[in-house]
Amino acid sequence: MKFHTKYLTFNTKRHREYINITSELEEASAESGVKEGLCLVSAMHITASVYVNDAEPGLIGDIDEWLEKLAPEGIDYRHHRTGETNGDAHLKNLLIHHQVIVPITNGSLDFGPWQQVYYAEFDGQRKKRIVIKIMGE
Amino acid sequence: MKFHTKYLTFNTKRHREYINITSELEEASAESGVKEGLCLVSAMHITASVYVNDAEPGLIGDIDEWLEKLAPEGIDYRHHRTGETNGDAHLKNLLIHHQVIVPITNGSLDFGPWQQVYYAEFDGQRKKRIVIKIMGE
Amino acid sequence: MKFHTKYLTFNTKRHREYINITSELEEASAESGVKEGLCLVSAMHITASVYVNDAEPGLIGDIDEWLEKLAPEGIDYRHHRTGETNGDAHLKNLLIHHQVIVPITNGSLDFGPWQQVYYAEFDGQRKKRIVIKIMGE
Repeated sequence: MKFHTKYLTFNTKRHREYINITSELEEASAESGVKEGLCLVSAMHITASVYVNDAEPGLIGDIDEWLEKLAPEGIDYRHHRTGETNGDAHLKNLLIHHQVIVPITNGSLDFGPWQQVYYAEFDGQRKKRIVIKIMGE
Repeated sequence: MKFHTKYLTFNTKRHREYINITSELEEASAESGVKEGLCLVSAMHITASVYVNDAEPGLIGDIDEWLEKLAPEGIDYRHHRTGETNGDAHLKNLLIHHQVIVPITNGSLDFGPWQQVYYAEFDGQRKKRIVIKIMGE
Repeated sequence: MKFHTKYLTFNTKRHREYINITSELEEASAESGVKEGLCLVSAMHITASVYVNDAEPGLIGDIDEWLEKLAPEGIDYRHHRTGETNGDAHLKNLLIHHQVIVPITNGSLDFGPWQQVYYAEFDGQRKKRIVIKIMGE
């Protein structure tokens, strides 16, 4: 069995930001030498997500607006009594999940036609990490 | 290690449709010969989901109505400026996630008493695929 | 390859309850002897979830209130025509997903600084289970 573990660090300029990490995953997959297996991509922070969807700027705007509608900023969350201000970012993380698994088949990430992997930052402007864990043969 | 990769293709009659794929997964699990391992089931399109829940028609109606309430069709999504009309389907996909993993224990999919796996189509009436990736011994 | 399968049973006092299971997962990981691999943690019932977030009581209150807002109890769900009363619990399960995977690196669960794993019960006061499946070397 082969294992390959890699961490990516982000420090976004904006408070919320959506970053296409598909090519970084393809690089990690190539480094692993795995021909058949699974590639886990998981946010290590609880105010960010990893999701699979389209690399279309309009859609990314829709996703951001929709997340803000269902889990809005600026509400008097109980969590803010600790001094934090990011209650909404925790809920956004739960709403679209913090991890995905991409199968590896014949040495490549086995994506459908439009699948791209995104890191979604909901409380940025500081260093945050994701872990990529590849396991296979 | 054993690996088994299988693709299922759907072409639904309706625009939105919920299809129980549990028996197809059991078949794929049996084909794999895996006694202990993991079975990933993942939509390859970004306007469909795979989820685990109950095979109860009333509940499926509730799920559909609830998805439509939280991520409605017919809104003027930015994504529609590309000519697409399926912005809601992308959001529904994100809301209930596009993949599940079923553990395999003693040669069987290790489900709880009511767990059934569904393919949820949010923009159908055309060919779309899921990938099943089984890995184990 | 090593495999380790473990079931945890919950019987909550309250109808909805959020239980930190991180130390139980660390125990299962240690028992497995796995140094590199994946740890799947998955609810076996369709009215409960497993999620990763903060061990902060205020935030847990926020999560509960938010889930109740987006998938409320006491609505006349179609599912209730079967005699059930837990339609909301099925939707809450779908909203925040029923499973997570924690990578294992150098013999430890590879968490970020604030990541804790929770079992979220949405229809409790009876016995319910989760499955932990560890696979690695």
